[in-house]
Amino acid sequence: MTRKRKRRLGQKAGLPPGTIVHTGEPVQNGVGIAQILYNGEGFVERDVVAVEEAFPAPGEQRTLWINVDGVHQPDVIERIGNRFGLHPLLLEDIAHTEQRPKLENYGEHLFIEFNTMHLEAGRDEVVIEQISMVLGPTWLLSFNERPQPYVRTIRDRIRADKVRYRNSGPDYLAYSIIDHVVDSYFVVLEQIGDRIEALEEELMANPTPHTLQAVYGMKREILHLRKSIWPLREVVGALQRETDLVRPTTGIYLRDLHDHIIQVVDVVETYRDTISGMLDIYLSSVSNRMNEVMKVLTVIATTFMPLTFLVGVYGMNFRHMPELDWPWAYPVLWTVMIGVAIGMLAYFRRRQWL
Amino acid sequence: MTRKRKRRLGQKAGLPPGTIVHTGEPVQNGVGIAQILYNGEGFVERDVVAVEEAFPAPGEQRTLWINVDGVHQPDVIERIGNRFGLHPLLLEDIAHTEQRPKLENYGEHLFIEFNTMHLEAGRDEVVIEQISMVLGPTWLLSFNERPQPYVRTIRDRIRADKVRYRNSGPDYLAYSIIDHVVDSYFVVLEQIGDRIEALEEELMANPTPHTLQAVYGMKREILHLRKSIWPLREVVGALQRETDLVRPTTGIYLRDLHDHIIQVVDVVETYRDTISGMLDIYLSSVSNRMNEVMKVLTVIATTFMPLTFLVGVYGMNFRHMPELDWPWAYPVLWTVMIGVAIGMLAYFRRRQWL
Amino acid sequence: MTRKRKRRLGQKAGLPPGTIVHTGEPVQNGVGIAQILYNGEGFVERDVVAVEEAFPAPGEQRTLWINVDGVHQPDVIERIGNRFGLHPLLLEDIAHTEQRPKLENYGEHLFIEFNTMHLEAGRDEVVIEQISMVLGPTWLLSFNERPQPYVRTIRDRIRADKVRYRNSGPDYLAYSIIDHVVDSYFVVLEQIGDRIEALEEELMANPTPHTLQAVYGMKREILHLRKSIWPLREVVGALQRETDLVRPTTGIYLRDLHDHIIQVVDVVETYRDTISGMLDIYLSSVSNRMNEVMKVLTVIATTFMPLTFLVGVYGMNFRHMPELDWPWAYPVLWTVMIGVAIGMLAYFRRRQWL
Amino acid sequence: MTRKRKRRLGQKAGLPPGTIVHTGEPVQNGVGIAQILYNGEGFVERDVVAVEEAFPAPGEQRTLWINVDGVHQPDVIERIGNRFGLHPLLLEDIAHTEQRPKLENYGEHLFIEFNTMHLEAGRDEVVIEQISMVLGPTWLLSFNERPQPYVRTIRDRIRADKVRYRNSGPDYLAYSIIDHVVDSYFVVLEQIGDRIEALEEELMANPTPHTLQAVYGMKREILHLRKSIWPLREVVGALQRETDLVRPTTGIYLRDLHDHIIQVVDVVETYRDTISGMLDIYLSSVSNRMNEVMKVLTVIATTFMPLTFLVGVYGMNFRHMPELDWPWAYPVLWTVMIGVAIGMLAYFRRRQWL
Amino acid sequence: MTRKRKRRLGQKAGLPPGTIVHTGEPVQNGVGIAQILYNGEGFVERDVVAVEEAFPAPGEQRTLWINVDGVHQPDVIERIGNRFGLHPLLLEDIAHTEQRPKLENYGEHLFIEFNTMHLEAGRDEVVIEQISMVLGPTWLLSFNERPQPYVRTIRDRIRADKVRYRNSGPDYLAYSIIDHVVDSYFVVLEQIGDRIEALEEELMANPTPHTLQAVYGMKREILHLRKSIWPLREVVGALQRETDLVRPTTGIYLRDLHDHIIQVVDVVETYRDTISGMLDIYLSSVSNRMNEVMKVLTVIATTFMPLTFLVGVYGMNFRHMPELDWPWAYPVLWTVMIGVAIGMLAYFRRRQWL
Repeated sequence: MTRKRKRRLGQKAGLPPGTIVHTGEPVQNGVGIAQILYNGEGFVERDVVAVEEAFPAPGEQRTLWINVDGVHQPDVIERIGNRFGLHPLLLEDIAHTEQRPKLENYGEHLFIEFNTMHLEAGRDEVVIEQISMVLGPTWLLSFNERPQPYVRTIRDRIRADKVRYRNSGPDYLAYSIIDHVVDSYFVVLEQIGDRIEALEEELMANPTPHTLQAVYGMKREILHLRKSIWPLREVVGALQRETDLVRPTTGIYLRDLHDHIIQVVDVVETYRDTISGMLDIYLSSVSNRMNEVMKVLTVIATTFMPLTFLVGVYGMNFRHMPELDWPWAYPVLWTVMIGVAIGMLAYFRRRQWL
Repeated sequence: MTRKRKRRLGQKAGLPPGTIVHTGEPVQNGVGIAQILYNGEGFVERDVVAVEEAFPAPGEQRTLWINVDGVHQPDVIERIGNRFGLHPLLLEDIAHTEQRPKLENYGEHLFIEFNTMHLEAGRDEVVIEQISMVLGPTWLLSFNERPQPYVRTIRDRIRADKVRYRNSGPDYLAYSIIDHVVDSYFVVLEQIGDRIEALEEELMANPTPHTLQAVYGMKREILHLRKSIWPLREVVGALQRETDLVRPTTGIYLRDLHDHIIQVVDVVETYRDTISGMLDIYLSSVSNRMNEVMKVLTVIATTFMPLTFLVGVYGMNFRHMPELDWPWAYPVLWTVMIGVAIGMLAYFRRRQWL
Repeated sequence: MTRKRKRRLGQKAGLPPGTIVHTGEPVQNGVGIAQILYNGEGFVERDVVAVEEAFPAPGEQRTLWINVDGVHQPDVIERIGNRFGLHPLLLEDIAHTEQRPKLENYGEHLFIEFNTMHLEAGRDEVVIEQISMVLGPTWLLSFNERPQPYVRTIRDRIRADKVRYRNSGPDYLAYSIIDHVVDSYFVVLEQIGDRIEALEEELMANPTPHTLQAVYGMKREILHLRKSIWPLREVVGALQRETDLVRPTTGIYLRDLHDHIIQVVDVVETYRDTISGMLDIYLSSVSNRMNEVMKVLTVIATTFMPLTFLVGVYGMNFRHMPELDWPWAYPVLWTVMIGVAIGMLAYFRRRQWL
Repeated sequence: MTRKRKRRLGQKAGLPPGTIVHTGEPVQNGVGIAQILYNGEGFVERDVVAVEEAFPAPGEQRTLWINVDGVHQPDVIERIGNRFGLHPLLLEDIAHTEQRPKLENYGEHLFIEFNTMHLEAGRDEVVIEQISMVLGPTWLLSFNERPQPYVRTIRDRIRADKVRYRNSGPDYLAYSIIDHVVDSYFVVLEQIGDRIEALEEELMANPTPHTLQAVYGMKREILHLRKSIWPLREVVGALQRETDLVRPTTGIYLRDLHDHIIQVVDVVETYRDTISGMLDIYLSSVSNRMNEVMKVLTVIATTFMPLTFLVGVYGMNFRHMPELDWPWAYPVLWTVMIGVAIGMLAYFRRRQWL
Repeated sequence: MTRKRKRRLGQKAGLPPGTIVHTGEPVQNGVGIAQILYNGEGFVERDVVAVEEAFPAPGEQRTLWINVDGVHQPDVIERIGNRFGLHPLLLEDIAHTEQRPKLENYGEHLFIEFNTMHLEAGRDEVVIEQISMVLGPTWLLSFNERPQPYVRTIRDRIRADKVRYRNSGPDYLAYSIIDHVVDSYFVVLEQIGDRIEALEEELMANPTPHTLQAVYGMKREILHLRKSIWPLREVVGALQRETDLVRPTTGIYLRDLHDHIIQVVDVVETYRDTISGMLDIYLSSVSNRMNEVMKVLTVIATTFMPLTFLVGVYGMNFRHMPELDWPWAYPVLWTVMIGVAIGMLAYFRRRQWL
């Protein structure tokens, strides 16, 4: 259900701190860079080739958003870092795509990192990708591992909505990007919920060890999601307190976003509880079925063992066995045996084994 | 036992923040709006059609309560929001009925959200519905998904009780609404308690996999209740500290309410413990019954196997078997076999298998 | 082991806050009221009929203790409340006997609620009853569901001990009542400890499903005790900080009391751990015994099945079976069969199944 | 493994607070009292009979250590208490030997209580005994249930080491006593570790219900040790903050001691984890062995049941059974039966049951 | 998988505090001492024999790093301690190699202790070794149990990188040593992850009690790693706050390091969860296989028992058994028996036992 997380943990060992190394899956494409400039009066957007074209002109008053799709070219990150005075460690974190969500205050700007999730079409897998943002007084830089749908949506909203977006500065822009990503979590969680329900029904109807493995896989998947989402709560909480770069009007929106993240986590916790319960149900279901098997065995054995003994008795070759010569002995024995069998079955029915 | 919670989680994904979308079950009815105006001298109540009729006249000194039954018409919520200067996110939360209990301070007013519960007559289901309140300096707005019994009760109390209610302002009104709802939790919990007791007896008397599923269903139900109730404790705690809008005399009542909520949560926790214990009892009961089955099988097998062997011996066709010709051989063998059987049974009785 | 806790949870739903409703078991007796007045010089005690007789005269300088046995007559509580200026919610809590231990500061006086426990003679049950106290600057009111032994003991101590009690004021009196009650917890816990030990021995010697139910009952009982005791720790901690009404000299005693409560809770926790361990021992004991049963079955079956096969062989009616005519065949077969049986038993002994 | 903890919990119930009652095991010996006086210049030590001989002369400048072995004579404790102005509750705690480690500040002096442990020679038991210390500005009182080895060691160190001890005052003396006791914990823990290792090997080699009981006993023992050690961490932490009576130079030593206690607790936690794992291993080991038993039974039954059926077929007495007259029928049948048996065994070997 | 941790816990009991005792494994080699001096202008390094050669000249302005490989010669540690004014307890901790990671502020210098890990080539073992550092205003002392690879790497970086290292002082040097060690944790964790994956596959394919023991061994190993790593998080957090000796520019690097440690702990926690799940899978796998065995037994027994009974019937020697003389009786019986067997198998197939 999830992309094999085989990004090697140790590949950065031995390098000095601040080295920009891309740790995600190898990417062939180039890096796409877009510049969006807007304020109450106007809106300009353009895709650029050289990263320098996206840099603001001196004295630029409008809100600037530079979006970078692709973090696998260290020199692009480095040139942006030089222009905006970003710390080497910040640049290293942008390229290092295995980070937990976090917020770091570098004085003049904030560094925000979090994860996006989506289900890859066709394949039944949750893909987790990192988004890094640097929030300055009048600009926002965003870096994505791969092109993300939020870029188009937010662009369209800015172009359309003159009132709220265009007058709100880059802090509101950062908020609306995170909000959009958190909304997309719900879509992924809903799909996982459907998968859990299917597993639950399979578990009730016909549990196999394969089902159990699927349940454990799901459990690990959910723990992984939880680790990707949970720290975001603190990030948004801390963002509310960064009053130098975040206006009070945006603060109210962040409080609302904080609530949404708690709801996401609540859903994840509920899934975790459900899955823990599923393991217990599996075990008790296996026990129950073993009980059923044992009952069948016991009913058969206790019914036929006395009968087999009886027919064995009259298979003996003693010379002096008076019953053997009685004319009604054979039908009488059948009657007795049928009576024994019926008695046994009645006993088992009374004990509710049948 | 509970209404299928199939309100789709992701249906708001992709919409800009502050969009008023009703996320509950579709509702056909109109929206019922009531205006109640009171102070120490008088009491006026009336149902209105257009929401504007409920708005207070300029310079109105009396305490105003506007109760709205139905949150599925965005324009009603929006018009109220415009009149009282409510934030778009607050309005979004009123319509979005999947919220956790929460308290938000918007400076001039407080926003309170919590849940009501009742058992639907006829169907064996807990229905959880959201109540939103906005508490201003002289007015209280309340929004219910569906008409709620508390409205009538509180109205009657205000009409009847001139002393406490009419002189206490909207903060006491808000308190008494929450208090009434928390009291109704006890009624629901009592019914759940009866259901748990019935399950417990079923588990002792005749546990089936069906019982186990019922137990797990109940466990999930209780976890869900807990999530609907638990945050209310913090909400009431925070409300006590909002001294701008909440008078000290109301604070004492809120402290008492806080205690009641802790009691509710205590009961829920006790139920959770009871249910966890029930799962263990189920498993050990299954083990015990398997043990019983095994004992029956073993008693039968160990009694009849030696006997069957013995009769087999004398069914052999060897020419030289002196016992076959002894005249008392057959009755002696019967004596031996009955002795073996009695010995076996005595042995099993001594080991307490019978 | 415990009185059936069937006080209905929801019986107060729908009543306005501050209504005095007795929620405990119905009581027939009247309410006993005693007035105790003392200081360094003198000591006066008397039982009164009308509650007003117990009220202090104006300008009374001595420490006043009014003890009320019985909280089922709302008017008695109300008249006391009017005289001492108690809040309606406080009076409601006195009559509502399902409260958790708590301390509430009403400015001029403190309200303290906690529980007493004793084992009812003859019946094997822990009875939990509520004690409410109101501590004023020169007086202490105490309310008991039923007459309590502490009243007599403390009275006698005040009468006898002129130094510490008579000069210490009502805060020391309140402390000594709580201390007396906490001491009585140890007596109850000791009895429960004996019961646990008995259950443990039963579990080792001869566990039945009935034992398991007793263990679960005990577990629930202990969780219930814990809930009655645990919050008292905070109550006493908070009492130490109420320096307006509690003198520093009494504070030292409260710190000591705090330690005692922690010890009580430690004992309860130890009991809980012991009982959790007992459930595991029960399950493993059931497993072990099933193992024993299986071994017996297997030993018998694997011993007799080959033998039965062998005698079956020589019960066949083939015309050409040379062994049948050998003169020593029969004794040789017996030798072989005894050899097989001994070999089997030796094998099982080596595998330690016998 | 541990002394039966049968000191009755409730024996102090009903006594007024501050009553000095010895709650440990009855002791026959007298009380040994030693006075040690030292400073940079000199060192005097002597054993005294009457406690008053140990009291410091007025104006005594040297550091005074009074060590009391035995807390079962209330009058000795009381006379010391009168001389040094100790609170009645402090004296009660010295005699009451079931206390948790704690630190209490009585303004002019500190009261410290903690536990010592040792393995009684010959018997395989951990003995836990209480040490109480009162730390004043120039003196230290220590009370032991029984004579302790630390007294001799510390005395010798003071006599020998003129630099550190003699110039450091009673706070350093108190530190070095606690440090010595904490070091002795490691010795006890090592012995317990050896015992756990032995149990582990027994569990792997030949687990019996007796082993399980030993494991549970060990678990309870470790929980008990933990409760005796854990609060000492806080005691030492609090002692560091008591800057009135504890010099900064001693504070550095206490920080080091704090680390040692954390190491002790770490070891105890590791033991607890190991023991929890052992219970799981026991259960899975029982399951495994039942599996083995079942396999043996199944192999035997499935091998011999078809064979017994076959020989039964040719034991029938039908007149018309052509096989009975075939000359090679008997050896052919043997061949078939051996083939069936070999086939069965091959099947079981392939399924890895043999 | 791990070096037997048999360093005896109690070997320091009874020694006065501040005694320098080497507690690790005995070491034969000498102690290697290196002195490195550098600033923006130059870089000098040399290995020294007598420790005094490494001491800085008076008025030395350059950053001094003294690295000591080997802590088993108390006099070396003591002479360094005297030169730099280190506290006896600090020296004791350097030699005592069983410490948890910690940071201690001694006013003029900081003492930092943490652990390094590596996999010993050839043997499949994690070796944990202690590194102690003392950070002064212009110097850093580092002590290793054995020569460590980080020393060479960091030396090379200082020699090569003139800008960052040479101008950053000893605090940045301390940071880069810890950072290098934390990077090496990832390498070890990766190897453990591979081992866990192998165990998981073994568990699915062919679980034996040996596998279970390996799983438990791994669990304990991971708990041990966790204890070695977890406190380092706090150490680095505290180091950030030591602003006297740590410059703000280094603080940013420490914040980044803090994140890395959290990632390490996250990985360890994930491993722990995986291993807990493996135990459940083992148990359910054992249950499943027992179920399989039982089914085989039951299928065989219920198929052959009725057949054996039938052939027993016609092995009886009654004189009057008409079937015996019927010419088609034998083939008819075979038909019946084959029918019964097929019916049984069909029944079992329908119940999905085959």
